Amino acid sequence: MSLEFTIPGLDETASEKAIGILQERLSQEQAGALVLKHAHWNVAGPNFIAVHEMLDPQVNEVLAMADETAERIAAMGGSPQGRPDDVLRFRTWPKFEETGRKDALDYLRALDAYYDTWIKADRQAVAELDDLDFVSSNIMQDHVQKLEQFQWFMRSHLID
Amino acid sequence: MSLEFTIPGLDETASEKAIGILQERLSQEQAGALVLKHAHWNVAGPNFIAVHEMLDPQVNEVLAMADETAERIAAMGGSPQGRPDDVLRFRTWPKFEETGRKDALDYLRALDAYYDTWIKADRQAVAELDDLDFVSSNIMQDHVQKLEQFQWFMRSHLID
Amino acid sequence: MSLEFTIPGLDETASEKAIGILQERLSQEQAGALVLKHAHWNVAGPNFIAVHEMLDPQVNEVLAMADETAERIAAMGGSPQGRPDDVLRFRTWPKFEETGRKDALDYLRALDAYYDTWIKADRQAVAELDDLDFVSSNIMQDHVQKLEQFQWFMRSHLID
Amino acid sequence: MSLEFTIPGLDETASEKAIGILQERLSQEQAGALVLKHAHWNVAGPNFIAVHEMLDPQVNEVLAMADETAERIAAMGGSPQGRPDDVLRFRTWPKFEETGRKDALDYLRALDAYYDTWIKADRQAVAELDDLDFVSSNIMQDHVQKLEQFQWFMRSHLID
Amino acid sequence: MSLEFTIPGLDETASEKAIGILQERLSQEQAGALVLKHAHWNVAGPNFIAVHEMLDPQVNEVLAMADETAERIAAMGGSPQGRPDDVLRFRTWPKFEETGRKDALDYLRALDAYYDTWIKADRQAVAELDDLDFVSSNIMQDHVQKLEQFQWFMRSHLID
Amino acid sequence: MSLEFTIPGLDETASEKAIGILQERLSQEQAGALVLKHAHWNVAGPNFIAVHEMLDPQVNEVLAMADETAERIAAMGGSPQGRPDDVLRFRTWPKFEETGRKDALDYLRALDAYYDTWIKADRQAVAELDDLDFVSSNIMQDHVQKLEQFQWFMRSHLID
Amino acid sequence: MSLEFTIPGLDETASEKAIGILQERLSQEQAGALVLKHAHWNVAGPNFIAVHEMLDPQVNEVLAMADETAERIAAMGGSPQGRPDDVLRFRTWPKFEETGRKDALDYLRALDAYYDTWIKADRQAVAELDDLDFVSSNIMQDHVQKLEQFQWFMRSHLID
Amino acid sequence: MSLEFTIPGLDETASEKAIGILQERLSQEQAGALVLKHAHWNVAGPNFIAVHEMLDPQVNEVLAMADETAERIAAMGGSPQGRPDDVLRFRTWPKFEETGRKDALDYLRALDAYYDTWIKADRQAVAELDDLDFVSSNIMQDHVQKLEQFQWFMRSHLID
Amino acid sequence: MSLEFTIPGLDETASEKAIGILQERLSQEQAGALVLKHAHWNVAGPNFIAVHEMLDPQVNEVLAMADETAERIAAMGGSPQGRPDDVLRFRTWPKFEETGRKDALDYLRALDAYYDTWIKADRQAVAELDDLDFVSSNIMQDHVQKLEQFQWFMRSHLID
Amino acid sequence: MSLEFTIPGLDETASEKAIGILQERLSQEQAGALVLKHAHWNVAGPNFIAVHEMLDPQVNEVLAMADETAERIAAMGGSPQGRPDDVLRFRTWPKFEETGRKDALDYLRALDAYYDTWIKADRQAVAELDDLDFVSSNIMQDHVQKLEQFQWFMRSHLID
Amino acid sequence: MSLEFTIPGLDETASEKAIGILQERLSQEQAGALVLKHAHWNVAGPNFIAVHEMLDPQVNEVLAMADETAERIAAMGGSPQGRPDDVLRFRTWPKFEETGRKDALDYLRALDAYYDTWIKADRQAVAELDDLDFVSSNIMQDHVQKLEQFQWFMRSHLID
Amino acid sequence: MSLEFTIPGLDETASEKAIGILQERLSQEQAGALVLKHAHWNVAGPNFIAVHEMLDPQVNEVLAMADETAERIAAMGGSPQGRPDDVLRFRTWPKFEETGRKDALDYLRALDAYYDTWIKADRQAVAELDDLDFVSSNIMQDHVQKLEQFQWFMRSHLID
Repeated sequence: MSLEFTIPGLDETASEKAIGILQERLSQEQAGALVLKHAHWNVAGPNFIAVHEMLDPQVNEVLAMADETAERIAAMGGSPQGRPDDVLRFRTWPKFEETGRKDALDYLRALDAYYDTWIKADRQAVAELDDLDFVSSNIMQDHVQKLEQFQWFMRSHLID
Repeated sequence: MSLEFTIPGLDETASEKAIGILQERLSQEQAGALVLKHAHWNVAGPNFIAVHEMLDPQVNEVLAMADETAERIAAMGGSPQGRPDDVLRFRTWPKFEETGRKDALDYLRALDAYYDTWIKADRQAVAELDDLDFVSSNIMQDHVQKLEQFQWFMRSHLID
Repeated sequence: MSLEFTIPGLDETASEKAIGILQERLSQEQAGALVLKHAHWNVAGPNFIAVHEMLDPQVNEVLAMADETAERIAAMGGSPQGRPDDVLRFRTWPKFEETGRKDALDYLRALDAYYDTWIKADRQAVAELDDLDFVSSNIMQDHVQKLEQFQWFMRSHLID
Repeated sequence: MSLEFTIPGLDETASEKAIGILQERLSQEQAGALVLKHAHWNVAGPNFIAVHEMLDPQVNEVLAMADETAERIAAMGGSPQGRPDDVLRFRTWPKFEETGRKDALDYLRALDAYYDTWIKADRQAVAELDDLDFVSSNIMQDHVQKLEQFQWFMRSHLID
Repeated sequence: MSLEFTIPGLDETASEKAIGILQERLSQEQAGALVLKHAHWNVAGPNFIAVHEMLDPQVNEVLAMADETAERIAAMGGSPQGRPDDVLRFRTWPKFEETGRKDALDYLRALDAYYDTWIKADRQAVAELDDLDFVSSNIMQDHVQKLEQFQWFMRSHLID
Repeated sequence: MSLEFTIPGLDETASEKAIGILQERLSQEQAGALVLKHAHWNVAGPNFIAVHEMLDPQVNEVLAMADETAERIAAMGGSPQGRPDDVLRFRTWPKFEETGRKDALDYLRALDAYYDTWIKADRQAVAELDDLDFVSSNIMQDHVQKLEQFQWFMRSHLID
Repeated sequence: MSLEFTIPGLDETASEKAIGILQERLSQEQAGALVLKHAHWNVAGPNFIAVHEMLDPQVNEVLAMADETAERIAAMGGSPQGRPDDVLRFRTWPKFEETGRKDALDYLRALDAYYDTWIKADRQAVAELDDLDFVSSNIMQDHVQKLEQFQWFMRSHLID
Repeated sequence: MSLEFTIPGLDETASEKAIGILQERLSQEQAGALVLKHAHWNVAGPNFIAVHEMLDPQVNEVLAMADETAERIAAMGGSPQGRPDDVLRFRTWPKFEETGRKDALDYLRALDAYYDTWIKADRQAVAELDDLDFVSSNIMQDHVQKLEQFQWFMRSHLID
Repeated sequence: MSLEFTIPGLDETASEKAIGILQERLSQEQAGALVLKHAHWNVAGPNFIAVHEMLDPQVNEVLAMADETAERIAAMGGSPQGRPDDVLRFRTWPKFEETGRKDALDYLRALDAYYDTWIKADRQAVAELDDLDFVSSNIMQDHVQKLEQFQWFMRSHLID
Repeated sequence: MSLEFTIPGLDETASEKAIGILQERLSQEQAGALVLKHAHWNVAGPNFIAVHEMLDPQVNEVLAMADETAERIAAMGGSPQGRPDDVLRFRTWPKFEETGRKDALDYLRALDAYYDTWIKADRQAVAELDDLDFVSSNIMQDHVQKLEQFQWFMRSHLID
Repeated sequence: MSLEFTIPGLDETASEKAIGILQERLSQEQAGALVLKHAHWNVAGPNFIAVHEMLDPQVNEVLAMADETAERIAAMGGSPQGRPDDVLRFRTWPKFEETGRKDALDYLRALDAYYDTWIKADRQAVAELDDLDFVSSNIMQDHVQKLEQFQWFMRSHLID
Repeated sequence: MSLEFTIPGLDETASEKAIGILQERLSQEQAGALVLKHAHWNVAGPNFIAVHEMLDPQVNEVLAMADETAERIAAMGGSPQGRPDDVLRFRTWPKFEETGRKDALDYLRALDAYYDTWIKADRQAVAELDDLDFVSSNIMQDHVQKLEQFQWFMRSHLID
C-alpha cells in the first residue's frame, strides 16, 4: 500500500496500519447494512410491522457509518474498497444464514448473534486504533455506541 | 420455490417467473449501489467535489429502487435474498474493475459502461414482465427511467 | 348518462364505459376507507398499538385514491356519486362483518379477505380500462400497486 | 351493550348512555365527510375553484372529528361502529339529495340546510352529555364550534 | 400561604384553595412522568419496540401538563413546588412497584392500575375546581381527556 | 340590530345579547393589541431586548383572539365593527396613558394595571355568556386563560 | 420634540422632520390594518371565500409595515405613538364608512378609494423624505410598492 | 440528426423518431407555460383572485413537464431546442389570440380551446411513442394526465 | 394605449412611457429564461454537472423577475404581453445562436455576451424610469443587481 | 445484581460496576431536571423572562441526558431505576433548598452551587468509567461538557 | 488596479473608485463581525443571557453584509481582500478597546461608540457611490439601514 | 491571568494552561475562517462554481468551531480575545499569501499548505490538553476530525 498523502503530524506507517483496520470495519459495516435490510424484508408474524419499521433506521445509521469509515480511509491517504467482491474479500466474520419469511423473533435471535461478532471486532479495532490515530478511534467508538444500542433493542424482544 | 401466498388474480406460475426476474434485478441494484458508493469515495482530480456530490443522490435512489423491488417480491409471496453472498450468487453482469483514487472522468467512463449492461438487463426484464404482472413491469419501467437519466449525467461529462 | 364534455381525442362511448367502471371503484375505495378506519378503532390485544398505527396511513392513502378516481370521472365529463347511499348502491362486494373490540390478528385476517375481492376487482377494472383510456388505467394500476403492498403488510402478520 | 371497562370514576350506566349519543354523532360525522367530498367533486360555475378548495379542509376537519368521537367511545369501553352500513343504520337525519355537476351556490344552499340539522343534533347531544361526562361534552362542544364556523362560510356566499 | 397577587376578579380564598388542589395534581403529574419513563426503559418481550415507542410521547405530554399546572399556580399568585422531595411530600396515591426488565404487558397492567388512581383524583379535582376557578378547571379537564386516551391505549393491549 | 341568520338551535334574542357582549370584547382586544405594540416600541433600559421580544408574541396572540371574536359575531349572524372609530366607540375601560421611551419596568407596571380591567371585563363576559351560548363562552374562557398567563409574565418582573 | 439621540451623520432638525412625516404614516398604516380586517370580516356574496382569504395576507403585510415605520422612528431618536387615540389624533384622511355584511365587490370598491388617498400620501412622504434621510425614504418606497400591488388586486375585481 | 449516443437497447432510428416527436411536445409545453402566465397576468373581473391563483401552479407544473421532456431528449442522445425562435419554429398549433385585461371567464374559454389542441397532440404522441420507447411514452402519459385535470378545472368554471 | 386606471399620484403619460419600457424588459426576461434553460439542457464536458446545476436557480430568479415586471405593468393600468410571439415582437437584442450539446465553457462564453446586451439595456431602462416612476426603477435596479451577480458567476469560469 | 446479558467483549464485573456508577448519575440527572424546572417556575424580578426562557432548554437537555444514561444501563444488561423514590434513594448530593418566587439572581446563585456538586460527581464518574467502559465514559464526558456550559451561563449573570 | 472586466455600461474609472470605497467597507464589516463576536463572548452581569443572544444574529447579519460587499467588488472586476492582515491594512477607524468579562452595559456603551464611526463611514460611502454605481449604493444603503436598527437596540439599553 | 472562577474539580493552574492553548487555537480558527472566505471570493477558472460552493460550508463550520473554543475559554473562567488585533497578536503560523482572482486549483494548493500547519498545531494542542482537561481535548479532537476531512476535499482536487 502506498498512500497518496498523509495527515499532517501522522506518520505513514501508523496511517497504513489504521487504514488496514478501518478497511475491514468498512466491509463489515457494508455487509451489516445488507443483512439488516435482508431481515427487514423477510421478518413476519404478529410483530411484523413493529420490527419491520425498527430495522430501517438501523440500516440508514449503518450506511452512514460505512460512509464515515470510508471517507476516513480516504482522508488518511488510502483508497476505500467498497465493491461487492471487496465486502466478501475482507470478511472475517460468519455469514448470516437466516433466510425465508419467518417469525420476527427468529430473525432477531440471528441478528443478536450477528451483532455479537460485529461489536467484538469493533471494540478490538478501537483498542488497536487508540495507539495509531485518535480520530479513527473516536469514529469507531461512536459506531460501537450506536451498535450496542441497536443490539439492546434486539435483545429486549428476546427477554422473557 | 413455493410461495407463501399469491396476489389475488395472479396465478402462481406467473408469480414465480416474475419473482425470478425481480430477484436478479434486486441483486444488480444492490451491487450498483455499492459500486456507485465505491466511486463516490475514490473519484479525484479537478472535478472532485462536483462528481463526488453528484453520485450520492444516485446511491440513495438506487437503494430505494432495491427496497421497492424486494418488497414487490415479498408482496408476490416470495422471499427476497439480499445478503452479500446473494448479491454475488445472482450476478450475471461483469464486475466493476476500477479501483484506487483517480480522476473522476476515468470513473465516469467505467460507470457509463457499467450502466450499459444494467439498463439493457432492466429493459429486457420489462419486456418479460409485461406478460406476467403489470405492477412489476411498472416498477421496473420507473427504475429504468431514472437510471437512463443518471447515465445521461455521466455521459454528459464525457462529451467533447 | 349524458356527459358535460369529453376529453379531447376520447369518444363519448368509451368515456361513458370508463366512467361506469371508475364509479364502482370509487364506491369500493370509499367503503374501504370506512372499513379500515373501523378496524383502526376496534383492534386490540398485545399488538394493539403497532397495528392501530399501521392502519392510519392506509386510510389516508385510500382516501387519496378515492379523490383521484372521483376527479378522473369528473375530468371525463361525468359526475362522481359519493354520498353514503351511493357507496351502498354501487356495492358488488361482500360486507365487512367483523365488529367489536377483538384481537388485531382477527381483524387482519378479515381485512386480508376483504382486500382479496377488492384487488381482484381493481385488476379486472385495469384490464377493461386498457382498451378505453390509458390515463384511467394508469390511475387504477397505481392504486392496485399500493393495495397489494398494504395486503402484504397484513398477510405478513399472519405467516407462522 | 356490555362495556369492556369503564373510565375511573364514571359509572357504567352513564357511560352506556354517553356512548349511545356519541355513536349517532360519529355516524353523522362520517356521513357529513362523504357528503362534503361529494360536493367538492361536483360544484361548478364561476366560483368553482374557490369553493372546491374551501370544502377540502372542511372534509379533513370532519374526518378528524369522527376519529376523535370514535376513540372517545372506545376509551369509555364501547366499540365504535364505522362501516358503511353502520353509517346508514344510525341515520336520524335527512339524506343529502343534491347530485350532478351544478353551480357552487346550489350546493352551498343544500349544504347550509344539511348543516342546520347536523348542528341542531350536535347541540342537543351537548346538552345531554353535560350530565353524563364532561370530556364527551367538551369534545362535542369543540366540534360544534368548528361546524358553526364552516356553516358561516357557506351562508356568507348566500348573502346578497 | 400568602399570595403575591390575585387574578383580577378572583378572591384570595378561592385562589388559595385552587392552588392547593393544583399543587397536588402537579406532584402527581411529575411523578407520573417519572414512572412512565421508568416503564419506557424497562419494558421487554416480543412487543418491546412498539410499547417502548408508545410511552415516549405520553411522557412528553405529561411533562407539558405539569408545566401548565405549575404556571397556573404561579399565575394565581402561588409558588409551585417541584423538587424531588416535593413530589413525595404531596403524594396521596400508591407508589409504582413494578421494577426490573420484564414483559411489556406486565408493565401495561401496572400502569393501567396507576392511571386508575390518577384519573380518579384528577376528576375529583375538576369537580372541586368548578366552583373556584373555571380556568383551572378547564386545564384539568384537558389533562383528564388526554390521560383517559392514554389509558385506553394501555387497556387495549390487555383485551383478549 | 337585525341578524342575517341565527345559529341552528339558538334563538335570536340570546344571539343578539351575546353579540353585544362580544362586540365590546372585540374592541378591547383590538385596543389591547395596539397598546401592547406601542409598549413594544417604547420600552427601554437594561431589560430592553428581553421585554421588547416578550411583548411581540403577546401582540400576535391578542390579534388572533380579536379575529376569533369577530368571526364568532359573524357566525351568529351579526356584523363585527372593527374600524379605528369603532374601537373608541365601544371603549368602557381607561385609556393607556404611558408614552415616551422609558424603562421597561415602568411600562410593565402600566400594562399590569391595563390587564386588570381587561381580565375583569372578560371574566364578567364569560359569566354572562354562560347563559346565552356555550361556544361564545368557551372562546372567551380561552382568551382569559392566555391573558392571565401574560399578566403573570408582567407581574413576575415586578416582584422583588 | 426632543430626541433621545440622533443617527450618526444625521442632524437633529432633519431627524425631527422625518419623524413627523413617519408618525403620520404609522398612524395610517395602523388604521389601514384595522380597516382591512374589518372588511375581511364583513365581505359576503358569491366571491366571499376568495376575497376573505385575499385580504388576510394584506393585513399581515400592513402590520409589518407599521412595525418597520415605528422602529425607524425609534431608531432616529423619536418615540412612536401607537395607541388607539394616537391613530385618530394623527388622522388626515377620510374615515372608512362601509359597514355591515354586504357583497365583496362593494367592499373592494370602498377599499379601492381608501387606497387612493393612502398611496397618494405615501408618495408625498417619499418626496419629502428624499431630502431628509434616504433610509426612511427607502422604507416608504417599499411600502408604496406593496400597497400599489394590493390596490391592483382590488381594481382587478372591478374591471368589466 | 446524428445522435451523441443511444440508450442501451434502443436502436438509433427509433431514438431519432422519438426525439422528433418529443421536440415538438417540448415546444408546445414551453409555449403553453408562456400562454398560461400571460393569462395569469391579464385575467380580471369578480373571479380575479381565485383564477389568478389557480393558474400559477399550472404554470409551474408545465415548466416541470418541459424540463422533463427536454432532459429525455438529451438522455436519448439528442439536443433539445428551447430558445424563443425554436418555440415558434416547431409550432403546429394555433396561436393564443386573447389579449388585454378582461373577464377571467373569457380567458378560461380561450384556454379551454387551447388545451383541446394540446391534449389531442399529446395523446397522438403517446400513441406513436408506444412503439418506439416506453419511457418516453410514460413521460407523455403523465403529462396528459395532469393537463386533463387542469382542463377540467377550466371547464368547471364554464358549466352553467 | 389606453390605461384601465392609473396609480394615485402618477399621471397617465408618465405611466404609459414607463409601461412601454417595462414591456420590452419583460420580453427580454422571458427570452432570457428560455435561453438559460436551453443552455441548462445542452451544456456538456468535464464541468457538466456543476454548470448544469448553477444555471437552474438563475432560470427561476429570471422567471420571478418577469413575473414582477409584468405585474408592475398591470398595476400601472397596462396589459402585459407575454405570449411566444410577443417575446419576439418586442425583441431589440441579438438572438442566442449557440446550439447542440457542447462544452460548458462554450455556452458560458455565449451567455456572457448575451448578458452584456441584457444588462446594458436594463441599466438604460433604469436611467429612463428614474424620471417616470421610482417604484418601476427600484424593481429594475433589483433585477440588474442579480443579473450582474449571475454574469460574474459566468465570467469567473472564463478567467485564466 | 444479576445482568440479563453483557455487551460483547465486556466482562460482567466491569459491567456491574459501571451500571452502579451510571445509576447514581441517572438519579442526579432526573433530580437536576426537576430542580431546574422548579427554578424555571419560581424565578422573578427584572430579569424574569430572560432567565425563565434560558432554563427551559437546559431542562430538555438534562432530560435527554437522563434518557441516554438510562438506556446505557439497559444496554449493559442492567435495569434503570427511575421512579420518584429511586431518585431520592440514590441521592448523595445536597437538596436544593431555594423555594418561593424570588429574584432570578438568587435562584442562579443557588443553581450555581447545585451544579458544583453535580459536575464534580460527574467528573469523578468519568474518571472511574475510563477503566470500565469507554462508551459509558464518552456518554458522561458529553454530559459534563454541556453542564459546564450551562453553569457558565449561570455564573455569567453573577459576575460584576 | 487593473480590472478583470467591467460591468456592461459602467466605465473602468468609476468601477475602480467604487471598488476602492467598497474594499474599505468590506474590511470594516469583517472587523465589526469579529468585534461583535468578541463582545458576545465577554458580556456578563444580570443581563447576560439577553444581550449574549441579541448579539449573535447581528454577527450573522454583518457576515452576510461582508459577503455581499465582497461579491460586489468581484462582480465589478476587482479582487476582494479579506485576510486578517487586509482587515488591519484598510482600517481607518479606532480599535475596539473593551476586553475582559464585564457588565453587558459596559460593552453596549463601547459598541454604541463603535457603531457611530461605522455608520458615519457607511453613510459617507453611500454619498460617494451615488455618483459611481447605483447597485453599489443600494447595497450599502441596505447595510446602513440594518446597522442603524442594531445601534438602536444598543442605545435602548442605555436610556434611563 | 486571573480567572473569574474555575470549573468544579479542575485546579486553577491546569485551567490557565488550557486557556492559553485554546486562545491560540481560537485565533487560528478566526484567521482560518477569514482566509477561507477570501478564497471563496477569489477562486476562478473552469471549476469556479463547484469550489466556490464547497468553501462556504467550511467557513460556517470553522466559525462554529471558533465559537465553541471561545465559549470553552469562558466556561473555564477566562476571557476569550477575539478582536482583529488579537487574531494577529496570537499568530504563530505563516500568513496566507495568495491574492487576486486566479484558478481554483492554485487556491486549493495554497489552502492545502495552510491546513498543514493548522492541523499540526491542533493535534499538538490535543496532546497537551489531554493532561489538562478532557472536555477541552474532546472539543479540539472534533475540530481536527472536521478539518482533516476538509483538507481531504482539497487534496482530492490535486490528485492526478
